[in-house]
Amino acid sequence: MATNNEKYQLQILPREKVFRDPVHDYIHIQDSIILKLIDTVEFQRLRRIRQLGTSSYTFHGAEHSRFNHSLGVYEITRRIINNFVRNYPSLEAGDGLWDDSERLVALCAALLHDIGHGPFSHTFEGIFGTDHEVVTQKIIMSPDTEINHVLKLMGDDFPEKVASVINKTYSNQQVVQLISSQIDADRMDYLIRDAYYAGVSYGAFDITRILRVIRPFNNQIVFDFSGMHAVEHYIVSRYQMYMQVYFHPVSRGMEEVLRNLLARAKYCYDQKPETMTHSIDLLIPFLEGEWDLDDYLRLDDYVLSSYFSHWLLEDDDILKDLAYRFLNRKPFKSLLSSDDQRDELTSSIQNEMRAEGFDPEYYFGENSSFDLPYDFYRPDSTSTRTQIDFLTKQNQVVELSQVSALVQSLTGVPRGEQRLYYPREVLHTILKIPEADLTPDQEKIIAAYNEETNDVTFNIQQRLF
Amino acid sequence: MATNNEKYQLQILPREKVFRDPVHDYIHIQDSIILKLIDTVEFQRLRRIRQLGTSSYTFHGAEHSRFNHSLGVYEITRRIINNFVRNYPSLEAGDGLWDDSERLVALCAALLHDIGHGPFSHTFEGIFGTDHEVVTQKIIMSPDTEINHVLKLMGDDFPEKVASVINKTYSNQQVVQLISSQIDADRMDYLIRDAYYAGVSYGAFDITRILRVIRPFNNQIVFDFSGMHAVEHYIVSRYQMYMQVYFHPVSRGMEEVLRNLLARAKYCYDQKPETMTHSIDLLIPFLEGEWDLDDYLRLDDYVLSSYFSHWLLEDDDILKDLAYRFLNRKPFKSLLSSDDQRDELTSSIQNEMRAEGFDPEYYFGENSSFDLPYDFYRPDSTSTRTQIDFLTKQNQVVELSQVSALVQSLTGVPRGEQRLYYPREVLHTILKIPEADLTPDQEKIIAAYNEETNDVTFNIQQRLF
Amino acid sequence: MATNNEKYQLQILPREKVFRDPVHDYIHIQDSIILKLIDTVEFQRLRRIRQLGTSSYTFHGAEHSRFNHSLGVYEITRRIINNFVRNYPSLEAGDGLWDDSERLVALCAALLHDIGHGPFSHTFEGIFGTDHEVVTQKIIMSPDTEINHVLKLMGDDFPEKVASVINKTYSNQQVVQLISSQIDADRMDYLIRDAYYAGVSYGAFDITRILRVIRPFNNQIVFDFSGMHAVEHYIVSRYQMYMQVYFHPVSRGMEEVLRNLLARAKYCYDQKPETMTHSIDLLIPFLEGEWDLDDYLRLDDYVLSSYFSHWLLEDDDILKDLAYRFLNRKPFKSLLSSDDQRDELTSSIQNEMRAEGFDPEYYFGENSSFDLPYDFYRPDSTSTRTQIDFLTKQNQVVELSQVSALVQSLTGVPRGEQRLYYPREVLHTILKIPEADLTPDQEKIIAAYNEETNDVTFNIQQRLF
Amino acid sequence: MATNNEKYQLQILPREKVFRDPVHDYIHIQDSIILKLIDTVEFQRLRRIRQLGTSSYTFHGAEHSRFNHSLGVYEITRRIINNFVRNYPSLEAGDGLWDDSERLVALCAALLHDIGHGPFSHTFEGIFGTDHEVVTQKIIMSPDTEINHVLKLMGDDFPEKVASVINKTYSNQQVVQLISSQIDADRMDYLIRDAYYAGVSYGAFDITRILRVIRPFNNQIVFDFSGMHAVEHYIVSRYQMYMQVYFHPVSRGMEEVLRNLLARAKYCYDQKPETMTHSIDLLIPFLEGEWDLDDYLRLDDYVLSSYFSHWLLEDDDILKDLAYRFLNRKPFKSLLSSDDQRDELTSSIQNEMRAEGFDPEYYFGENSSFDLPYDFYRPDSTSTRTQIDFLTKQNQVVELSQVSALVQSLTGVPRGEQRLYYPREVLHTILKIPEADLTPDQEKIIAAYNEETNDVTFNIQQRLF
Repeated sequence: MATNNEKYQLQILPREKVFRDPVHDYIHIQDSIILKLIDTVEFQRLRRIRQLGTSSYTFHGAEHSRFNHSLGVYEITRRIINNFVRNYPSLEAGDGLWDDSERLVALCAALLHDIGHGPFSHTFEGIFGTDHEVVTQKIIMSPDTEINHVLKLMGDDFPEKVASVINKTYSNQQVVQLISSQIDADRMDYLIRDAYYAGVSYGAFDITRILRVIRPFNNQIVFDFSGMHAVEHYIVSRYQMYMQVYFHPVSRGMEEVLRNLLARAKYCYDQKPETMTHSIDLLIPFLEGEWDLDDYLRLDDYVLSSYFSHWLLEDDDILKDLAYRFLNRKPFKSLLSSDDQRDELTSSIQNEMRAEGFDPEYYFGENSSFDLPYDFYRPDSTSTRTQIDFLTKQNQVVELSQVSALVQSLTGVPRGEQRLYYPREVLHTILKIPEADLTPDQEKIIAAYNEETNDVTFNIQQRLF
Repeated sequence: MATNNEKYQLQILPREKVFRDPVHDYIHIQDSIILKLIDTVEFQRLRRIRQLGTSSYTFHGAEHSRFNHSLGVYEITRRIINNFVRNYPSLEAGDGLWDDSERLVALCAALLHDIGHGPFSHTFEGIFGTDHEVVTQKIIMSPDTEINHVLKLMGDDFPEKVASVINKTYSNQQVVQLISSQIDADRMDYLIRDAYYAGVSYGAFDITRILRVIRPFNNQIVFDFSGMHAVEHYIVSRYQMYMQVYFHPVSRGMEEVLRNLLARAKYCYDQKPETMTHSIDLLIPFLEGEWDLDDYLRLDDYVLSSYFSHWLLEDDDILKDLAYRFLNRKPFKSLLSSDDQRDELTSSIQNEMRAEGFDPEYYFGENSSFDLPYDFYRPDSTSTRTQIDFLTKQNQVVELSQVSALVQSLTGVPRGEQRLYYPREVLHTILKIPEADLTPDQEKIIAAYNEETNDVTFNIQQRLF
Repeated sequence: MATNNEKYQLQILPREKVFRDPVHDYIHIQDSIILKLIDTVEFQRLRRIRQLGTSSYTFHGAEHSRFNHSLGVYEITRRIINNFVRNYPSLEAGDGLWDDSERLVALCAALLHDIGHGPFSHTFEGIFGTDHEVVTQKIIMSPDTEINHVLKLMGDDFPEKVASVINKTYSNQQVVQLISSQIDADRMDYLIRDAYYAGVSYGAFDITRILRVIRPFNNQIVFDFSGMHAVEHYIVSRYQMYMQVYFHPVSRGMEEVLRNLLARAKYCYDQKPETMTHSIDLLIPFLEGEWDLDDYLRLDDYVLSSYFSHWLLEDDDILKDLAYRFLNRKPFKSLLSSDDQRDELTSSIQNEMRAEGFDPEYYFGENSSFDLPYDFYRPDSTSTRTQIDFLTKQNQVVELSQVSALVQSLTGVPRGEQRLYYPREVLHTILKIPEADLTPDQEKIIAAYNEETNDVTFNIQQRLF
Repeated sequence: MATNNEKYQLQILPREKVFRDPVHDYIHIQDSIILKLIDTVEFQRLRRIRQLGTSSYTFHGAEHSRFNHSLGVYEITRRIINNFVRNYPSLEAGDGLWDDSERLVALCAALLHDIGHGPFSHTFEGIFGTDHEVVTQKIIMSPDTEINHVLKLMGDDFPEKVASVINKTYSNQQVVQLISSQIDADRMDYLIRDAYYAGVSYGAFDITRILRVIRPFNNQIVFDFSGMHAVEHYIVSRYQMYMQVYFHPVSRGMEEVLRNLLARAKYCYDQKPETMTHSIDLLIPFLEGEWDLDDYLRLDDYVLSSYFSHWLLEDDDILKDLAYRFLNRKPFKSLLSSDDQRDELTSSIQNEMRAEGFDPEYYFGENSSFDLPYDFYRPDSTSTRTQIDFLTKQNQVVELSQVSALVQSLTGVPRGEQRLYYPREVLHTILKIPEADLTPDQEKIIAAYNEETNDVTFNIQQRLF
């Protein structure tokens, strides 16, 4: 049997292959195993899963797929490793530098890190109880997938290695941190890529410089201190993308429509099966709560969206209406909320909604979006978060928020906001009522509505958006 | 009843709205009718129709939709008209300058010019006999569409005006040429946009300069002579995009898979209905050849793709296999052909294919892709093609190919090539056979295969690709 | 005599003229007075004054001139005003909106704001006591300049108006703030332009969005609250450009060489005139301390640099050596300093320098570079700094640092550092001495050298660079 | 003594150094000899020589220096060689692939190919009889230059090797063609760089793709046939840059002013020495026709420009006036000419000029600008031009114009035009004269003036511009 080393040799393509990429110019493929992985059905399926879910309803240019992004993460990882091999090769065990026998496991993990995503991941998971991280592990480990088959060409234990990099338990933490840390190939690619497709400039941090200053050190990934400002800028870009793109209230309004639509479909299937006359064959395993990996892999944005088109023809009014809102971009409206006022405001909105004939069960949503832009390692925290460290010229390690006042201002405090969503018809009705005739519920809604546009200094922490 | 003029006033939005666009930075909406058109179900549906069909199988970044492109065509038209109003307003009837009462009809036509496209337009049309130009007219004119309803807000005859701009019969030829000519808003947007998403640089001609030199003159659209080189460069960009992106043999290999897949589905539905067990409800009207506008508007890339996913589960081996090839990007291979050798080569390939167990009815394709990069007006031709004219400082009109040797080299000669497509398995089998054992059919195939890679000077006209 | 209004009409060019600009695509000239100003000798002279002084010794791409930048500031101002006219025209006196009769005074001030700059402004001023702000006023007001002559075409009081906008005393504060405030056309242009030429990405904030949200309100310039993150990003970009480009230690090392070179030339001219054998005619008025505007306008980077070339041939060794260092890019080295240690460290360096044969008078420099990234208005401060305000949907004004934690982290605290400069030969000598043999002075220098590379957390406030 | 191989090893820097470049992102320096060459006085001098001479008077952004460009040519060469080493290393003598022992000679030649340029090269050479190619050889070979000194570190014969690459006599023609051929590192850099700084898009061909398809073959440089369209696009870009930027009539109008200015200075120095009262020490050797390399190296744009400033103060009216025109951008106007009409038109213009008081000796210019966009190798031609060849998959070599109709249209025919230049005052005077009162000379001038704007089809070959 071929040793790993021999296999490694066998993997080199006779001539490098490239994919033209708008973000990285070219994606370079040098190993035959990478090409084989890209050609599997599980990976090709990512062409049919959008990277940004409902965000393209706000930023119409951002229609790119996870296939696109996965190639980008692979490419960034490849470039980092090339740099490591040239400048920081491990010369003896334990010197904390880059061990190039990890190259392929790192590249495969980079390529496959999102392989388990399904259509509209987070929303779908909330309704049907799937979990894309669990599925990722399954796709890599299950002997029935093409991906598992290809990975095994590298050795029987290779799938497990790749899977453990993705779930962060792999022994070589440098490999893990390349794929998952506060500044990893995954985040670097999606920030730049999403900014490119959305047509916004703030996601464009200085990746060229970061790829120059990143380095292996003492079994972790650190950065030359000279690159401090570039890393600082990356954190700020990340923060801007979350605040301005990922958490955009209108995209979340579409998400709420989607969530309710799926919930209603589940209800109809269970309680009013006579209303589900058109085929939704591929969704049935999930509606029944008994699905296997094959079922999961059959789903994608295209399948789900076509079922929405079918539902337009069904009899259940709520199902039909929600499908119509989703397909034709009629987002729910929202009010900014806070922990204090949430219950009362929810009650007012729901009362008003009922009065207008909307069932809160399917027309109301609470959507909290928070992101922690950066944090240092806190031993008492349950999070596996690693901090971003710099290496000084004298080989001293120093943590980012210690040297950047900018980053310090974003450290440890989740940023984002809580919003309550409801059909725009409800607000439009209330806005037409003379002030004197408002009911108490209506008054509360109007107060919240005015407060949002009026008092921007209110609770800055919560509502920086 | 409000006069058109009053309506025109009513249309201005209290405050301009914008869409962030990666190509034009911002799409500016100033008229409420444009916003209303964008919000219709027929226009929102364009989000689910890809601009480039199978090209994203070669250029993975190019996953953008026709929604995206339609906004771009609108925006370019808006910018041109703004320039016309500032610099070339008609002062009296017949002066051949820009009549700004045409503004909204031009903008609406620009926005809606592609509204009739269905999923994978050309391939679908070939099988099911639909015609996106006819459908475009229907969507605009049918009293049942939201688009027709919105357009009528501008006057009862407004839909007809917009429709006639798109089919080029409108009386004001300047408006027609803005949308349809050899250098129109449609082409300018798709060249730049497709290049941006594909990540190739050659589509990026100097649109800023062209928008500066374009002008109305004598009831047609001309260009200042000072912009000759910019227009010349546009023609070259267009040529490069056709040769390198739109006609890429691998994308066409996927198109051939798709064409055969749809053909087989039609066959199964007609001849082996027992094999079509999963729902394809929305496709049935087309399979039966009796569809109306509602049926057409229910179809999109998502619906079609989900049916392909269903077909993976059906019993017909060919249907299943072709669906698998399409969903998982297994393009047919191709041989370059010419009129002389086509019949013979076709026969050899089909014989070989049968020997390998592939039915040529569903596994063979002839795909000719030709584009005429530019032509001047030829009175004896049936084409409605208008030429590109320049205006000299002395107001003399001169045609492009008269002053550009570059463009002259591309004028009047269609560029492209003819290819014969077949499953890659067939070629792989033949390539393994020792030369001495080849049959005459196999010899012909191998000869064509070698000739393509070998003799590049062969028939340059045909095979510039 | 023509009224101002008639003059205004006369000013419109029959056809807009454009300059192709790499940053703004086109600079649009619509008024004949602007074209006339650009054609004056005083403005053409800006082609021979570099925008960034010694920075091109670190960022070699940044060789652009103030001519370049001045056109850019004009263009941004023009775009803002166009937006104001379209969206916020003053309808009656005192409504706090945009009064378009201010258009030309604003555009002229934007174009001319830097007209008084001389070669290597700050360094030159330090030695010869010139002041570019004073000169700017003179150039505009003096009846002998072409600029004054052109401005007077608009009315006898027009030069004074333009001058007062630049020195911030003009009555309409909106005009003043467009040109001089914490987020004005000047800063917006130089950040983007300098980043473009230097080839760094962090200067590229979202100017398109800022130009959309900027607006006149209540006699000041504010921003729509919806643009908060874009403004926040601008502040961060500004901060990054100062820290990474403008304050780069190597550029400042060249500045120190230059400062000493000019000082030595002054000394030679005064004390050793026999050593100044080659012509430096145009510099004499400054060496003698008696110069007028004509003298000033004859100087530019080219003249000064050619004198340096002359000095290479002179007899004074120090003059010759410093000219050599400057022309051939041999920057001084530096040590980070602080208020506490400055005196002692200075003394050690100077002692060491003398031992090596370098006269501290001409080979030592203290260079403090600090920038206040942002501050709100402080009534007790002597600065004329205006704060950045936002306007909420309810027309409430709110100050930037109140709503951006990011900006708050940069507010009110000058960022930068203090460095001591000396010839690199001095350090190289010391580094070769065995630790045991170091003198106390040498020990102090080595300690500071190590500390800089070693202890990055030391005095973060001072040394964020 | 160290063998070449040992020296090669010694050259590697302990850690790669980079220069941030707006065009190539980073310039990577890995060899200490390259860094040493950049630090020489002869190379630093290139910072003071503009790349594009008078073009920045038309495209104000294009103020970059030859220092800038020289680094770019080095970087492109480095990237090509890296690719060659990875993919096409010579395995045995005579296999026609890349011999990596040529690496440093190629890199040094790339860096130094323009080292002999002086200020405003072509114009200066015309007046003073210098020749930058001869000077380049001298700088490299003369034992007195720092560059020669550095190059000798690589071996005594190394300067000669580098010099022979630049004058194309080096034995390894692959090295020569990398630096000088119809598609070499020099041209690739200047097209992209000049386009970037001028802010025009047509120079931006697909360099990434070209760097992928370029390869060594049979002792020459060829391109994979798959890159045909990218090379074709490069030729078109080149053609566009020449027609639109390099040959711009206004820049040439400034060139004519400069040429006459230098001619007049020569005349004054020889014939009216009393008028030359201000120092022009560094120019004297050239005025006297006896200069050595040191004299040459002391000149740069800055020195020359400062002398122009001095001349403004001299007594000779023509010298003063021409210096004024140059410094303040008052270009001569021009008329398009042809071989047929040249003599007659020249005579008319000169007569008219004299009548207006302008001496044709110093106020008239004939400026022919022609470029041969591409040509194949013609054995009977004296030019050393090599053709652009492609390599097919079957290793057949095929020449570019055989496979590209586009390029064929540009092959073998010089493109450009001949213009006659004269002070704009002359034309302005004539234009004011009533038609009936025109003299025959004036009539000829007006006819030529009208013809140019009028009859664009006239003599297309000559006047494609």
